[in-house]
Amino acid sequence: MSHSKGKLYIISGPSGTGKGTICSRLLQDPRNEFSVSMTTRDPRPGEENGREYWFVTRDEFLENVEKGNFLEHAEVFDNYYGTPKDMVMKRLEKGRNVILDIDVQGGLQVRQAMPDAVLIFILPPSLTELRSRLEGRHTDSQEVIEKRLSKAVNEIRLIGEYDYYIVNDDIERAAAKALAIMAAEDCRVPAKVRPLIREYEQQQKGE
Amino acid sequence: MSHSKGKLYIISGPSGTGKGTICSRLLQDPRNEFSVSMTTRDPRPGEENGREYWFVTRDEFLENVEKGNFLEHAEVFDNYYGTPKDMVMKRLEKGRNVILDIDVQGGLQVRQAMPDAVLIFILPPSLTELRSRLEGRHTDSQEVIEKRLSKAVNEIRLIGEYDYYIVNDDIERAAAKALAIMAAEDCRVPAKVRPLIREYEQQQKGE
Repeated sequence: MSHSKGKLYIISGPSGTGKGTICSRLLQDPRNEFSVSMTTRDPRPGEENGREYWFVTRDEFLENVEKGNFLEHAEVFDNYYGTPKDMVMKRLEKGRNVILDIDVQGGLQVRQAMPDAVLIFILPPSLTELRSRLEGRHTDSQEVIEKRLSKAVNEIRLIGEYDYYIVNDDIERAAAKALAIMAAEDCRVPAKVRPLIREYEQQQKGE
Repeated sequence: MSHSKGKLYIISGPSGTGKGTICSRLLQDPRNEFSVSMTTRDPRPGEENGREYWFVTRDEFLENVEKGNFLEHAEVFDNYYGTPKDMVMKRLEKGRNVILDIDVQGGLQVRQAMPDAVLIFILPPSLTELRSRLEGRHTDSQEVIEKRLSKAVNEIRLIGEYDYYIVNDDIERAAAKALAIMAAEDCRVPAKVRPLIREYEQQQKGE
């Protein structure tokens, strides 16, 4: 039984839910890879082309948009960000799983393009807990925190579009759940079952 | 986030695939319970009413059939066997998962009655391997083994009706996969997401 093709996993959730930590756990399995986005923003010191992002000019980016080369793209603070389709597809073909850490709007765009994608929503244990995590970071003003919380609730309202949800009340448990989801998805009966059945039928005839 | 209700798991697969061993691993988790079938056959020495089976008369059984009390039932060698609906429902309501070790025909009957049931198919690594396992048991004649193998292929032809499949090439790995499927199913976004969203909305208003 060969699991020839990989799967695309979309991990979304409000900022402060520990999504990044969960994703980095998933990457410990060599079968899983991050998708590298394309962006028009300037590289920051230490960032490498093709590692953090693919850095391109505005014209190059828009050309890719026109050619339909993105699974999703968005403009954030005058810069473009997008998920290059061909790189995701190539990895899936090679049997690698691709992990996309992306917001809910982006996630839903990707699902349109890739109906087989698996969408996982990471939830904070409560909004109160999310607030105290954001405050504990000491990076955001009170105003920004309020905006993040309100955005969080708006994102959570779209959870019905997702396949799975994980309440991150404990990072170890949450990461284990994400890994269980991936293991279970590997066991999904594929849409095309004929090749799987044929294997057994042929053995029957061969005997 | 309360996972109030349990799930019904249907485990099917040809005889000799190690289905029973996988089921008994699942039962090590106290949240999981076996469904006890009702039967008209006589109890064997050591069997207890309500443990191995609910032993009833033919009339009692047929009365239950008429009342629609079974999720599935079948006649095997002049005896009836059936899965009592109310006992499964009661356990699910209590938040327990119910495990049904049942053949494919029965599994598909149950899915009709319970569309939310999760169907898992246990496959042998190959038909050749299944043959040698059946031969290794020294319990069946060559003729019976041939029948079992042919029944196995007929069952495998229905795998497209199942949600998951596990190739049992190693019992530890296979049991781990079954547990991962159950853990993943616990993370499924429910059909009704309103209560889940409301929790966060109320916290937002409360703040």
